[in-house]
Amino acid sequence: MKNRVITISREFGSGGRTIGRQTAERLGIPCYDSELIDKIAEKSGFAKEYIAEKGEYSAKGGWFASAFSDRTFNGTSNQDYLWIVQRDIILELAQKESCVIVGRCADYLLKDVADCLTVFVHADIQKRAERIVKRYGETSQTPEKRLKDKDKRRSTYYRFYTDRDWGAVQNYHLAMDSGVLGIEKCVEIITGAAKRS
Amino acid sequence: MKNRVITISREFGSGGRTIGRQTAERLGIPCYDSELIDKIAEKSGFAKEYIAEKGEYSAKGGWFASAFSDRTFNGTSNQDYLWIVQRDIILELAQKESCVIVGRCADYLLKDVADCLTVFVHADIQKRAERIVKRYGETSQTPEKRLKDKDKRRSTYYRFYTDRDWGAVQNYHLAMDSGVLGIEKCVEIITGAAKRS
Repeated sequence: MKNRVITISREFGSGGRTIGRQTAERLGIPCYDSELIDKIAEKSGFAKEYIAEKGEYSAKGGWFASAFSDRTFNGTSNQDYLWIVQRDIILELAQKESCVIVGRCADYLLKDVADCLTVFVHADIQKRAERIVKRYGETSQTPEKRLKDKDKRRSTYYRFYTDRDWGAVQNYHLAMDSGVLGIEKCVEIITGAAKRS
Repeated sequence: MKNRVITISREFGSGGRTIGRQTAERLGIPCYDSELIDKIAEKSGFAKEYIAEKGEYSAKGGWFASAFSDRTFNGTSNQDYLWIVQRDIILELAQKESCVIVGRCADYLLKDVADCLTVFVHADIQKRAERIVKRYGETSQTPEKRLKDKDKRRSTYYRFYTDRDWGAVQNYHLAMDSGVLGIEKCVEIITGAAKRS
């Protein structure tokens, strides 16, 4: 039987990472989030900060910048190389064990190869703004501006590498508003749904 | 305390109606689906078949046809009148009791006035095609063509009257793929989420 893999895609500040971690705990399986970055760093040689940024976000400037920045003479970029390394690691993990994977287009990468439950977590901008200020503190940018920038670059990255729309309801088995439902209820729903088969 | 209202929006053939009915049964509250059509017929004088069609679907021909068909000299159409009647009935129901309401833009109508749990049910086109053939039989059109036509007209209707995108993940507290999760699991998830507050 295939391993059961839960992928959590999330809007920045929606608590998706916390939901992923608690779901994994509840199910007694590992959660790959920062652990994924460690693995990618080890295999690729890139710095962890670089991976955290470039493995999920388009370059500032949108699709055009993402498509053409850092290209070498043979047409690949550092970001493409990183994409390949993280794709291979995600595929290996799904092959090895049941787990939760947060972000990094895992929903797309695993859709045809694993027994996946794909989840999208979102919340309205006010709720997310409160959360990021509490978690990461204030910066010179307003929290709303930070969120919009992050969402846009995450969505552009996803679009560029998967040719699908990030957050389109059809791409996910479950989508939930963590701002309304609360973290605990989201964990409960995903845990219940994952036990299905 | 406000009544708890669960709105179920659904892709045609996704089983959303069955999910709504079973959720209502499980929670011991009424479900308004065809019952809503009866109420609208009584109040508006329109035939039930007309309401079933015109109360959720744009005219064939898309937005343009919807916007301009049947207009009278003062700019309103039969469809606008029907919209107003069904809006008033939905608002009254939410005022009166906790219930499940299937379709008819109830998610939009109640978003600021009721304690709502808004749900969107979808499934891939193959699963839905199987379901509608089983349920409504074959027609001269392929089931895929029927589904695409229904979805498009439902989406255009929603857009026209709410100025929002039908099925956009941010509009729903919960969205679920009934083809993957199954009807029973969807009912279980909604029932659990509704008990929250």
